[in-house]
Amino acid sequence: MREALREAEKAAETGEVPVGAVIVKDGEILSRAYNLVETYASSSAHAEMLAMDQAEARLGSKWLLGCTLYVTLEPCAMCAGAMVLSRMERLVIGTMDPKNGASGSVFDITACERLNHEIEVTRGVLQEECAEALSSFFRELRITKAQLRRKKRAEETSQTCEHHQQGENNQ
Amino acid sequence: MREALREAEKAAETGEVPVGAVIVKDGEILSRAYNLVETYASSSAHAEMLAMDQAEARLGSKWLLGCTLYVTLEPCAMCAGAMVLSRMERLVIGTMDPKNGASGSVFDITACERLNHEIEVTRGVLQEECAEALSSFFRELRITKAQLRRKKRAEETSQTCEHHQQGENNQ
Repeated sequence: MREALREAEKAAETGEVPVGAVIVKDGEILSRAYNLVETYASSSAHAEMLAMDQAEARLGSKWLLGCTLYVTLEPCAMCAGAMVLSRMERLVIGTMDPKNGASGSVFDITACERLNHEIEVTRGVLQEECAEALSSFFRELRITKAQLRRKKRAEETSQTCEHHQQGENNQ
Repeated sequence: MREALREAEKAAETGEVPVGAVIVKDGEILSRAYNLVETYASSSAHAEMLAMDQAEARLGSKWLLGCTLYVTLEPCAMCAGAMVLSRMERLVIGTMDPKNGASGSVFDITACERLNHEIEVTRGVLQEECAEALSSFFRELRITKAQLRRKKRAEETSQTCEHHQQGENNQ
């Protein structure tokens, strides 16, 4: 999970929501990735999807048998569905996502008896650090947005004053 | 849906499970794709995912606002989740998938109030033709597999007879 957190940090550094994922097989890291939705302008460029694509390419197989995926945030429906399709053996989650999570929160896709594969799931590994990575990112984003709003308002006020001044001078 | 069925035919011709998808915006086809899971050795290479990737690249946007996705088979959890993430406006389904479908069958991801987007869904368009494309593919696959099994058995029997004959000749 430490490695996944490092990936999340890279996402934050590029202005992306900090989620990181790492896939391990037989004690070896097969792939690592972070969220690149904004960079790629692609709604499916989640850390887990990119890590699974890389791992499948590396193994030359559509199945990730015997693999464990470590991810800092509970996967969404797309990512959880992809994990089931890939026959991922185990999923280790940092912090849960009550709004979009599909491994126990909104849906439980990784443990659905009706699908033809179930994944062993461990939750809450380095939970505080994973949650803090997200909280601090959104905190900074809110500060930046507030600063931009203030700057814009100041510019608008300054322009209004200038127009007003010009109007008075022209009278 | 006719265009999506044409894509499904291409999948069958390459030995893939015949599922086809087409994305339309303002009456124009933005992208078309068919299932390529075996060809790419990638569990996520579903027709819908490939069509969404293409459409996003073409629009240069992570969101497919105002788009309609036509698909011959009800999407799985991964694809339905990806559609919600991309803010797809409408989904038109050929035939339902009671085993894996996530737009009303096993899950209803495209109409989940807890997620931040819901998709307008139409089901059963060219239902019989879409279902028949799948049935005939699996029927042929079963015949081919049975033929291969028979051929293998015949070869094994022939080899056993030869060994037996050789044994008798050596005595």
